[in-house]
Amino acid sequence: MYRTHNCGEVRASHQGQEVQLSGWVHKVRDKGFVVWIDLRDRYGITQLVFDQDRSPAEVLEQAKQLGRETVIQVHGEVIERASKNPNIPTGEVEVLVRELKVLNPAELPPFTIEDVTDGGDELRMKYRYLDIRRNPVKEKLLFRHKVAMEVRNYLSAEDFVEVETPYLIKSTPEGARDFVVPSRMNAGQFYALPQSPQTFKQLLMVGGLDKYFQIVKCFRDEDLRADRQPEFTQIDCEMSFVEQEDILQTFEGLTRHLLRTIRGVEVEAFPRMTYDEAIKRYGNDKPDIRFGMEFGELNAVTQHKDFKVFNEAELVVGIAVPGGAQYTRKQIDAWINWVKRPQIGAKGMVYVKCNEDGTYKSSVDKFYTPEDLAQWAEAIGAKAGDLILILSGDAMPVRGQLSALRMAVAEELGLRKADEFAPLWVIDFPLLEWDEESESYHAMHHPFTSPKPGQMELLETDPGAVRANAYDLVLNGNEIGGGSIRIHDQGIQSTMFKHLGFSKEEAEAQFGFLMDAFRYGAPPHGGIAFGLDRLVAILGGQEIIRDYIAFPKNNSGRDVMIDAPAPLDNAQLDELNLKLNPQEVD
Amino acid sequence: MYRTHNCGEVRASHQGQEVQLSGWVHKVRDKGFVVWIDLRDRYGITQLVFDQDRSPAEVLEQAKQLGRETVIQVHGEVIERASKNPNIPTGEVEVLVRELKVLNPAELPPFTIEDVTDGGDELRMKYRYLDIRRNPVKEKLLFRHKVAMEVRNYLSAEDFVEVETPYLIKSTPEGARDFVVPSRMNAGQFYALPQSPQTFKQLLMVGGLDKYFQIVKCFRDEDLRADRQPEFTQIDCEMSFVEQEDILQTFEGLTRHLLRTIRGVEVEAFPRMTYDEAIKRYGNDKPDIRFGMEFGELNAVTQHKDFKVFNEAELVVGIAVPGGAQYTRKQIDAWINWVKRPQIGAKGMVYVKCNEDGTYKSSVDKFYTPEDLAQWAEAIGAKAGDLILILSGDAMPVRGQLSALRMAVAEELGLRKADEFAPLWVIDFPLLEWDEESESYHAMHHPFTSPKPGQMELLETDPGAVRANAYDLVLNGNEIGGGSIRIHDQGIQSTMFKHLGFSKEEAEAQFGFLMDAFRYGAPPHGGIAFGLDRLVAILGGQEIIRDYIAFPKNNSGRDVMIDAPAPLDNAQLDELNLKLNPQEVD
Repeated sequence: MYRTHNCGEVRASHQGQEVQLSGWVHKVRDKGFVVWIDLRDRYGITQLVFDQDRSPAEVLEQAKQLGRETVIQVHGEVIERASKNPNIPTGEVEVLVRELKVLNPAELPPFTIEDVTDGGDELRMKYRYLDIRRNPVKEKLLFRHKVAMEVRNYLSAEDFVEVETPYLIKSTPEGARDFVVPSRMNAGQFYALPQSPQTFKQLLMVGGLDKYFQIVKCFRDEDLRADRQPEFTQIDCEMSFVEQEDILQTFEGLTRHLLRTIRGVEVEAFPRMTYDEAIKRYGNDKPDIRFGMEFGELNAVTQHKDFKVFNEAELVVGIAVPGGAQYTRKQIDAWINWVKRPQIGAKGMVYVKCNEDGTYKSSVDKFYTPEDLAQWAEAIGAKAGDLILILSGDAMPVRGQLSALRMAVAEELGLRKADEFAPLWVIDFPLLEWDEESESYHAMHHPFTSPKPGQMELLETDPGAVRANAYDLVLNGNEIGGGSIRIHDQGIQSTMFKHLGFSKEEAEAQFGFLMDAFRYGAPPHGGIAFGLDRLVAILGGQEIIRDYIAFPKNNSGRDVMIDAPAPLDNAQLDELNLKLNPQEVD
Repeated sequence: MYRTHNCGEVRASHQGQEVQLSGWVHKVRDKGFVVWIDLRDRYGITQLVFDQDRSPAEVLEQAKQLGRETVIQVHGEVIERASKNPNIPTGEVEVLVRELKVLNPAELPPFTIEDVTDGGDELRMKYRYLDIRRNPVKEKLLFRHKVAMEVRNYLSAEDFVEVETPYLIKSTPEGARDFVVPSRMNAGQFYALPQSPQTFKQLLMVGGLDKYFQIVKCFRDEDLRADRQPEFTQIDCEMSFVEQEDILQTFEGLTRHLLRTIRGVEVEAFPRMTYDEAIKRYGNDKPDIRFGMEFGELNAVTQHKDFKVFNEAELVVGIAVPGGAQYTRKQIDAWINWVKRPQIGAKGMVYVKCNEDGTYKSSVDKFYTPEDLAQWAEAIGAKAGDLILILSGDAMPVRGQLSALRMAVAEELGLRKADEFAPLWVIDFPLLEWDEESESYHAMHHPFTSPKPGQMELLETDPGAVRANAYDLVLNGNEIGGGSIRIHDQGIQSTMFKHLGFSKEEAEAQFGFLMDAFRYGAPPHGGIAFGLDRLVAILGGQEIIRDYIAFPKNNSGRDVMIDAPAPLDNAQLDELNLKLNPQEVD
């Protein structure tokens, strides 16, 4: 037996007991006649003491030689500590060591195993197994487990059944790119890894399972943006005989349960906002409503003067920064430069200081009167002491720019509080979105989403105006889940494929099995999928998902620890009936 | 709202209430003036009644037109049933329907949606979503969910943390074949899908997570035998600072918990048997010990006469079939033919009837005296009334043949009882096994398994004799789990790779990251993995795993429902820098 207790377990009540502990040497303090060692494992740290009066001489000598991260096993007596450490649960006692055994020596780690480490990102990824020893990373993995368990507990209690759907499925030409898997037994043919189990969960509804969920890996071979992973985890859910309201209620319940059990937070309201309203008020379909700074549109009150920039703009829109009237010219210029960066792309920014004394100072004073500016302040809801920031131009990009500015300013002002949680349903999403590149409409959610009742006809006349039974759950400015009520009628599904540019043959080849299934009695159904990686991060009060993933890939889709992907040898390629395209590979 | 209650919910206590139900038309009985419909959903069946006195005339007319599997919604009153059905929980009442709405019509399903269906295997697979509507399949999926939840509950309570390891990893040339995944971003390079998360769970131990588990899909591109799937699910577990005994105790706990909560069965003992003993006593490393019929070796008591078959055999071995002395000549011949089938491969079989009157009748009476036969009976433990069946030849194949015979006879005698559970640890497995094809030793479990203490030297002199710290958990004649104590010393791991025929470069290229990890303080660790598909089937009292998988593949690795795998179009291949090998593909 390697241990009688773990390193987070020993207390004053154990005093006088003989214990055996195993763990890592976290820190050694060698005072010559006495050596203290912090012994660490997942559960905590216990102080070991070796001294010349009470420990065997060779054990003391051995202790002096121990390097950090050496794995040892000790046997000794729990004794009261001379100087207690109130910061750790084991801080009242230490273990007087009589026997010491080195279980495995350790070389000097490439970075320090401390809460704040000297290791950079790349190094920490290469030695991820060492990074996981650090409390901040370890705690995030334990936290993720706790969240996943609570998700399963809640949904199981609500009669949801977790069903494993297959990973080796069929490639679809739709949407983001599939990872494919060549089949050896079926030469020249390929499986695809699922981007989501969408069609399978719908088939489970046709199969009568009524309430399905699955915590499941999904795969997307896209160019990776920061904080996006080629493999990611979804909480995938589907229900039968439901309308949108049933789904919103059910997953409000789940979200409340998670906030309560994981964070001890009770959320009162889950407000709802249409997509159009979210775009108008926040420039964004996933607004952070923990703070105000809502958009105020100024076209009506700006276009009567000679300021061409505003007069020619499709949209003039601003926000009020609370207390921002005190900003210096330098601070304001910094924000102007911020919005002009290529990533944001604004051409310029107008500001109005609403001074405490009721006067205004703006960058367009030569065009507008104080009365004009007072009107603007009213339209935006700016109070004395606020700073109004205004962008103008084409509506779509300007809204995005102002939304980014709003978030950045709020971040700087500390308005995005990690321990505050403000959920929001965004509903009535457009069914289709226009794709400039292909000059055609694409399904905004996916091709199985149902249009709002009575809007099928609009599909012919004004496709962009059709709204869908689709909804996103937003938490603190992040989309944590999204879903829709599905089409369950085979005829409507065929029509939808036609509008999405599928030929009859393509639709049949790709989704024939689903349309077949709809022939045999499909119930009305709908669902939602949560991004677990992001949900866990948000619940943890963070927005970077990478540390909540045990072995993440870098921005090139590489696992730098195991060095994957990697070339195959020719024998393996031959077995798969594959050749590399010579001109493409160096 | 589609329903106020589900179809398994309405009871006598609801009498007089207005309810709304949705579900599938399971059965229609049309008596002209009255129509009864069984309305079905996942939760049960509720009887609907339409009659000319109490239902609107057009509703009664509509009900008469409903075909099986039509999805409907009804509104009506719960009333007492004239002839009650005590076999279903809703059997005391029926719903008098006032309103009826067809939610989705249904074509005639290709097989009947009944507990016993007229559909063959292929048809049921093609329309798996309809098969799942059938109780026996649906119940198996619900059962699987329950088992998985109990596994998670138990392990979480024992401080195990579920960690998701990556699916896009690196191909290893070892063992069974990897499925590979071409990378678009890293042209000419491939990921592999994990055959198991083995190295990752070991790295999590190096990372100090102490107790890990994961219910995880694994992939193996092998030629498929019956009841084997290219993707399968493991309960994968690993622990630090453990010896074999700690692991056996922990997973006895898990197994007891599952048998108790899932089946209401208390298992007293988890006997242990060495691999060598299991082979000797049962001819098999996963013996079913619910019944006796142990092997008796007869070389010593058969080789003094002129029966060449026995005299020249490396092994003469038999079993006693309880009560088998009553078998007719025809019955015995059937078993002789059974063992001579090519799948079993025996050349012949000798039998001895141990008659109730103390006499013997055998197929070798001209070689052996009754005293000889009495000796055999004693060696095998046959009693009066038993039938001894004896095979002979080379030890290895004969043991396999007799083991197959033992299982088949026990099956026929009803000794393999579905509601009886007999777990068994088989321990001390050989570290290596000889592979005839490659004429070299392979790791029997995997290359990370540690040899028994003090046996490293044997590796040089007698590799086949080295025993490993490896164990299997056997339940009712099926291996449900297997694992080992791992090597945690970098030097020993290098030596092991050398003995397994890896060059230093190969070992470094494939497992360099693991051996690197061992340099930085790896704790002693070990683990186990359970095959969830099989475990669930065995707990369900069955041995066929396919129905416990929602969407299984057939024996060619195909999903016949979605028709995967399938060819890719050339554009997709180009993007992946791949070409098909022209000579191999037709």
